[in-house]
Amino acid sequence: MTYCVGMCVDDGLVFLSDTRTNAGVDHISTARKMTVFEQPGDRVLVLLGAGNLSLTQAVLQDLCDESHEPGRATLWNAATMADAARVVGHAVRTVHQREAAALNEFGVDFNCSFILGGQIASPEGSGKAAHRPRLFMVYAAGNFIEASSVNPYFQIGEAKYGKPIIDRVLTPATPLDEAAKCALVSMDSTLRSNLSVGLPLDLLVYEKDSLRVTRFVNIDQNNTYFNMIHNTWGERLRQVFGEIPDPDWQSVTELPAQRAERAPVLHRAPGEAGSPGHSTPAQTLAQSDRRDAPR
Amino acid sequence: MTYCVGMCVDDGLVFLSDTRTNAGVDHISTARKMTVFEQPGDRVLVLLGAGNLSLTQAVLQDLCDESHEPGRATLWNAATMADAARVVGHAVRTVHQREAAALNEFGVDFNCSFILGGQIASPEGSGKAAHRPRLFMVYAAGNFIEASSVNPYFQIGEAKYGKPIIDRVLTPATPLDEAAKCALVSMDSTLRSNLSVGLPLDLLVYEKDSLRVTRFVNIDQNNTYFNMIHNTWGERLRQVFGEIPDPDWQSVTELPAQRAERAPVLHRAPGEAGSPGHSTPAQTLAQSDRRDAPR
Repeated sequence: MTYCVGMCVDDGLVFLSDTRTNAGVDHISTARKMTVFEQPGDRVLVLLGAGNLSLTQAVLQDLCDESHEPGRATLWNAATMADAARVVGHAVRTVHQREAAALNEFGVDFNCSFILGGQIASPEGSGKAAHRPRLFMVYAAGNFIEASSVNPYFQIGEAKYGKPIIDRVLTPATPLDEAAKCALVSMDSTLRSNLSVGLPLDLLVYEKDSLRVTRFVNIDQNNTYFNMIHNTWGERLRQVFGEIPDPDWQSVTELPAQRAERAPVLHRAPGEAGSPGHSTPAQTLAQSDRRDAPR
Repeated sequence: MTYCVGMCVDDGLVFLSDTRTNAGVDHISTARKMTVFEQPGDRVLVLLGAGNLSLTQAVLQDLCDESHEPGRATLWNAATMADAARVVGHAVRTVHQREAAALNEFGVDFNCSFILGGQIASPEGSGKAAHRPRLFMVYAAGNFIEASSVNPYFQIGEAKYGKPIIDRVLTPATPLDEAAKCALVSMDSTLRSNLSVGLPLDLLVYEKDSLRVTRFVNIDQNNTYFNMIHNTWGERLRQVFGEIPDPDWQSVTELPAQRAERAPVLHRAPGEAGSPGHSTPAQTLAQSDRRDAPR
């Protein structure tokens, strides 16, 4: 598997990807999942891919193949980011036509998805500023959606482990470097809980209107900043966890009758098969502000 | 979906389940996923179920059906927790034989899994203390595995969101109430990121050797303790996040050459299709302790 995240905030874009690939746990290898298309002053496009590596690489090959008929839309001549997303979608569909049936015979799904983000300058002489940076998610069917202010990020691959922290801290107003930090914390949680995601990482932070790559780093196990995040976050998380009081079972209450009624199958005693259950008097957590009362 | 977690620590067992069921987002309902089999002084068994609700309920019905031939193994007469896990596995297989083929015709997988935990007294007059509390995970095929000191918990359903915090804080030595708190924080992260998991929750904390239910609570949106966890955890998480320094891009370094070599497809410029990429000089994160140097 893979974990990649792309974020679109007011100040720019953040891209982070791991590099682990595996075909079973006994066949683990490393592959880049981030590809940067940069023409300084004109455009920066970043593509993150997840899924079957042979498919994501085939899509990439198609995107980079310049032997096509002249005038064909490519990532290098796309006028807008939406056009660029269509180019990626078209490449996915080209690979699907060529590969899907043969893979299907081996029971292999056509499994790939992409995050595409970047910024493209306005046509020369138009006197307009560059188009705003945009972020897209391209599905295996070649269709795509765009990030928005209510959903300023996309994840592909092993997304769930690292989702809670992003949901908690990321908004469009998040400063760019803070968003990068958020992506790294999200990745750290994923690395901790899932072997199929692994170092090194590729991190690219794109500053709005720069139209060139200014901040990129390949993060391995010797990276001081990521190690600091890894150690600090885990340690501080445990500290915060320790500071939250344990449940207070001293405020003994019986289960209110209506709770038992709402739980027909909750509690069984022998001979009670299928009949509505009842509740034994048991210590329960304080349901109100009883916690504040002296014990 | 569902999220259920069972934990086995030195002092006892913790069980937590949500109550949301859905057949599509337009058909959301509530169902208990925790069933308690209690014979005070003799045994407490707790069963958590996830998957297709019609299947988990069918398994439960089979487990509670006492019209079977006399002498059949049931959860009420199982001599050990391993026997009890076999009883659950047998019920799953019984339901599979009856239901799987018909469901398959509708393209519905035989999707169900269970967490079973509890403690059973030694035979009367044996003079022995009760067997230790044990925790099992029973799969859809009716086979099962047991928790151990290196893996003291099981999750079923939407497990990934809430896994990182458990991996970070839970060990067999974790006190019982702290384990309960950990389960609630894990649930809170899951609720935040996945609509298919919802309140109210059932929390049961089993004290080793008590052989009865002493701590059970149904947690709804008015539960003071859970609301405190929900608010405090999110807030403190954001605070800790804010305290971690942002990446330091001021320590400018060029990408070392070997990093570029390790990234053949990372960087593209027009006309470079398929050729090994190169890296543009870019600001990178300090790779060593350069961060400590004056800027």
